[in-house]
Amino acid sequence: MPLSEREIIERIRRAAKKRGPGSLSRVVAGIGDDCSIVRSKHGEDVLVTTDFSLEGMHFRREWHPPESVGHRCLVRGLSDISAMGGEPVAAFLSLALPAKLEQKWVDGFLRGFLTLARKFNVSLAGGDTAESPAGVLADVMVLGSVPSGKAILRSGARPGDQIYVTGSLGDSASVLKALFANPKRKFRLERSNAQLWRHFFPEPRTTLGRFLREKKLASAMIDVSDGLSTDLGHICDESRCGAEVEAAAVPHQRSVDLKLALNGGDDYELLFTSASTSVPESIGGIKVTRIGEVTRRRKVSIIENGRITELKPGGWQHFGSR
Amino acid sequence: MPLSEREIIERIRRAAKKRGPGSLSRVVAGIGDDCSIVRSKHGEDVLVTTDFSLEGMHFRREWHPPESVGHRCLVRGLSDISAMGGEPVAAFLSLALPAKLEQKWVDGFLRGFLTLARKFNVSLAGGDTAESPAGVLADVMVLGSVPSGKAILRSGARPGDQIYVTGSLGDSASVLKALFANPKRKFRLERSNAQLWRHFFPEPRTTLGRFLREKKLASAMIDVSDGLSTDLGHICDESRCGAEVEAAAVPHQRSVDLKLALNGGDDYELLFTSASTSVPESIGGIKVTRIGEVTRRRKVSIIENGRITELKPGGWQHFGSR
Repeated sequence: MPLSEREIIERIRRAAKKRGPGSLSRVVAGIGDDCSIVRSKHGEDVLVTTDFSLEGMHFRREWHPPESVGHRCLVRGLSDISAMGGEPVAAFLSLALPAKLEQKWVDGFLRGFLTLARKFNVSLAGGDTAESPAGVLADVMVLGSVPSGKAILRSGARPGDQIYVTGSLGDSASVLKALFANPKRKFRLERSNAQLWRHFFPEPRTTLGRFLREKKLASAMIDVSDGLSTDLGHICDESRCGAEVEAAAVPHQRSVDLKLALNGGDDYELLFTSASTSVPESIGGIKVTRIGEVTRRRKVSIIENGRITELKPGGWQHFGSR
Repeated sequence: MPLSEREIIERIRRAAKKRGPGSLSRVVAGIGDDCSIVRSKHGEDVLVTTDFSLEGMHFRREWHPPESVGHRCLVRGLSDISAMGGEPVAAFLSLALPAKLEQKWVDGFLRGFLTLARKFNVSLAGGDTAESPAGVLADVMVLGSVPSGKAILRSGARPGDQIYVTGSLGDSASVLKALFANPKRKFRLERSNAQLWRHFFPEPRTTLGRFLREKKLASAMIDVSDGLSTDLGHICDESRCGAEVEAAAVPHQRSVDLKLALNGGDDYELLFTSASTSVPESIGGIKVTRIGEVTRRRKVSIIENGRITELKPGGWQHFGSR
């Protein structure tokens, strides 16, 4: 049965009340007033990020179960906060739903969203609802905090810095590739199938990002959401420098094509540069791999089999434009 | 010529850089990183509000020039901040545009958005862009500040408090009514036609809201965005009380029907309750009118020609559902 806007708000409100105790103290007033009130601590900067997730562009209802859509909508913002070395505090969900959407779908979406929120101690503190003219549209805003002046920007890379990436790349894109090749394919989602799980329920590297900030190990950082080639380009643009990537060093599973590891998005690994010689090989159980070096020459290149070529931004294509 | 997503981001970024000096100090880093960074002051709470504005639901491209759409998208959030007695600080714009939208339209939209932002000393500090599957979709988040613990909530009304509203009601809805009656009608938008102007370029009551907070004159407050009957219902729900409104006292222009004044939305006047006996009749040139009283009995009623009836929430109907 489709839900009225009022019922959806009530449902979100009830669901949001079941939040964990940790973040409660920061969110003074949540859903139910003109604004939400977040108490900021002295000496902290507020981080803000917003991400649109549109049906047909960022997910497909035929492919992604509602829990996965809710999860994926939120992870993008959590990952952005992590890429600054920050701590997520509160999330705001603007949700436009087609008039005829089933109640069950909305419940699943909220379950996916809130399960991830609770895991990272984030309150659902507000948002908006509307009737959508076409498909499910979600805009998620995440508020985070970081000690004042300590956020890790994209602009801090310097020539000579080494380039690192966490975990492995291309898992999510290779699942997407399989779905495009066979759109009717139904996956059995099990946590034990790590590669599959990473596409449907990716997790942000929040603890790792904070560790890098606390230990002053990263000069610049970004999350790999658009694909390594594109995201490294962002760091180079903002830092006014270039980069040389060693193809053989880029971490990916054997089943994942190098092209997907270089250009596939949605992995939510962290890509960072460092002037330090003591970046650990693993942080909190997550592998950290050196993949290249920041250069003065403002070009992003890749070295493969001794040959150096330009690494063009070949990042994340939205579903709709393929 | 339609714009690519990259071009839109660049355009927003350039436009956002031309902001006034006042708010610059609060927004440490804006568009161009994973997150925006807003520096919070000691002893301040952060206010957050988000509002979806969807083509066909909240505006029509045939009726609203792009400047008006941009303006109206932002005013909703500024008004929410004002209804807490707060000060807007930064805005975040998530914008999904149809692939074939004209560059000229986007420029007009941004001009409308940024002109209002500058007037209220608000930075455009971030956002997201996407290709829209249907029509223009904007989700606008506004961040504000208020001295810690001093925000005026909806939940503070007490039986015996008097109910006040600023300015006059129903202007915006009566323009909308005229548009629905004659959809092909083209208005000549001139500032001198105040009623028309209020529909296309409404302004938030920011200074007035802050005055009420500073003078401790309001026990509860909301902005009239959904219509008096609905918004008064929100105050009563959150304050667990009722209200009696005197129909004859509700301020509206002679040309505006009482029904529109009671139920029409989008005026962005402030509706507040007060235990004080010294609420001025005018604040900063804006009329303040007593329209009724908060009651213990949890019902919203209206007294008209000596007869008391229930005032049902007959608020703002989205364009799409008429």
